[in-house]
Amino acid sequence: MTDTMQRIVQARRPDGFPVEEDFRLEEIPLPSPGEGEILVKVTHLSLDPYMRGRMDDVASYAEPQKLDETMGGGAVGEVLESRSDAFAPGDLVLGYFGWASHGVAPAKACRKLDPELPPSTALGVLGMPGFTAWAGLEAYGKLKKGETLAVAAATGPVGSMVGQLAKLKGLRTVGIAGGPEKVGLLTDRFGFDAAIDHRVHGDAKAMRGALAEAAPDGIDVYFENVGGPVLGGVLPLMNLHGRIIVCGMIAWYSGETDETGSIPLQKVWRMALVKRLTIQGLLQTDHTDRFGDFLTEVTPLVKSGQVSYLEDVAEGLENTPKAFFSMLKGGNTGKQVVKL
Amino acid sequence: MTDTMQRIVQARRPDGFPVEEDFRLEEIPLPSPGEGEILVKVTHLSLDPYMRGRMDDVASYAEPQKLDETMGGGAVGEVLESRSDAFAPGDLVLGYFGWASHGVAPAKACRKLDPELPPSTALGVLGMPGFTAWAGLEAYGKLKKGETLAVAAATGPVGSMVGQLAKLKGLRTVGIAGGPEKVGLLTDRFGFDAAIDHRVHGDAKAMRGALAEAAPDGIDVYFENVGGPVLGGVLPLMNLHGRIIVCGMIAWYSGETDETGSIPLQKVWRMALVKRLTIQGLLQTDHTDRFGDFLTEVTPLVKSGQVSYLEDVAEGLENTPKAFFSMLKGGNTGKQVVKL
Repeated sequence: MTDTMQRIVQARRPDGFPVEEDFRLEEIPLPSPGEGEILVKVTHLSLDPYMRGRMDDVASYAEPQKLDETMGGGAVGEVLESRSDAFAPGDLVLGYFGWASHGVAPAKACRKLDPELPPSTALGVLGMPGFTAWAGLEAYGKLKKGETLAVAAATGPVGSMVGQLAKLKGLRTVGIAGGPEKVGLLTDRFGFDAAIDHRVHGDAKAMRGALAEAAPDGIDVYFENVGGPVLGGVLPLMNLHGRIIVCGMIAWYSGETDETGSIPLQKVWRMALVKRLTIQGLLQTDHTDRFGDFLTEVTPLVKSGQVSYLEDVAEGLENTPKAFFSMLKGGNTGKQVVKL
Repeated sequence: MTDTMQRIVQARRPDGFPVEEDFRLEEIPLPSPGEGEILVKVTHLSLDPYMRGRMDDVASYAEPQKLDETMGGGAVGEVLESRSDAFAPGDLVLGYFGWASHGVAPAKACRKLDPELPPSTALGVLGMPGFTAWAGLEAYGKLKKGETLAVAAATGPVGSMVGQLAKLKGLRTVGIAGGPEKVGLLTDRFGFDAAIDHRVHGDAKAMRGALAEAAPDGIDVYFENVGGPVLGGVLPLMNLHGRIIVCGMIAWYSGETDETGSIPLQKVWRMALVKRLTIQGLLQTDHTDRFGDFLTEVTPLVKSGQVSYLEDVAEGLENTPKAFFSMLKGGNTGKQVVKL
């Protein structure tokens, strides 16, 4: 066992889209667990779009990332040393260890993993992204058989779960993704009824045309995780009493704007009124009391293959920022993790 | 009994704010009730902001008003002739008789009125506007004691009901209205905890400052019936998990815009996400199955005076358009009716 560890800190606030120089890889002494804590060797760390928001110094639903401290985030690994009765060395564990080779955390802030499943599933399909999808649909989706749901970034860990859960409930599902490979996966692997390539339909008008074909009865539920032209195409197709669950807007995370982003409030308000839409902000941490229900329901679906998932695995802590930038640009297909 | 009646028809589509020339007063033969119908002499007709939307030839939640036909709308009156067992001559009745001195309607489309109450209450506090307020709060308000609610046009039939119902449930209520007379009524007559004059605080920034003082703990529920600078002031003060019930936007009905109306969708989306807001379009016709519950609950409150109401009474069918324009500009204090 070495006596140092590696970590990545945020060196400065990004100016628009983040770049390598906004981060710094450091070697620091390996910490020792205090009473009730465990020391973990990270095997896979999670990359998630919400992290982009934390890199700015603005009020959001999450505290801004502190400069010169370990980049925060979920990770899984193996317990090296335990000062808690709840864990023994060798246990697989999920915790908030961030972009780092090792971490120390209170045992009660960690979750022991099912050894029958690959540990990385605790970062994706059975972790925060999968739970986000499940919790959003449970709390706000009001899914009814025969309705139509649309979701973008639909091969990703949130979008693919949204689509598959809606499909299991008897909805028509329309998935949006970028490029022929992902679009093929939507129907072949994730069972979407229709798939749209946003690279082919690059503006709101073209997207609207493609969606109108894919959703001939209109859209009842839109699970929003991208914003941008996809939203622009979806909005006019929303049905009476439609639900828009606003979970993210990756197209706008770095301050870029576009035609849809400029739609005036007056028009949105009129649409909400005329169609009696429900527009609902979603953050999974509001629903953590239901995480157990989620695992109970979805773990068997994953084990049986009824719910499928994909992972993109980058290798090496030093490649974490690059993998993160790529994910922000849609370079990943499934859940983006980094294997150490 | 005369053998003619008067009515007002829409002569053309308004170009922006409506003017007298958009309407025409006509004398036509008095119709005869068919089997199952009643003939009614109108005593009071209702003027409501939603009518402005119907005057344009655009898809909305209500059919556009047909040109050269009687302007639609609710009215109350006395049955002159009945070909239905449900009504007898002399009965007081509510029906959809529009801007007219008389009307014929199927008996089953009319409602017999409680003779203990002034018939005009069936157009306001115990009619569509009062029900709109009640239904919106019941279905979407999720009112919790100690929270803060804000509403504009707050001496009006919707706003005053919203404020009084919320106050009865233990919320802090903030009312917004135009001019010292109305502002005085908000606290003195309708029991609002705080009252703001939007003429004094005419832009979104000034409104925000006044609201921040009136709602020191932020705003949990905003019942939207105006749009414009009031909305601009409210938005940044919305609390986590706040509810915005979009019932109307009178400031924007004739296509005017302002700074708030131009707030970009991107910013609204971010706010919905960060604060996990619920933005919900409301139309009372979605809730008509609860109208009986509304009457059961609110009629005693009106009779006992626990729920107060105000009416503005214009006189004469020929003055209906003028009274309507005045209402659109906030010239009314309470429910605007026209007495014939």
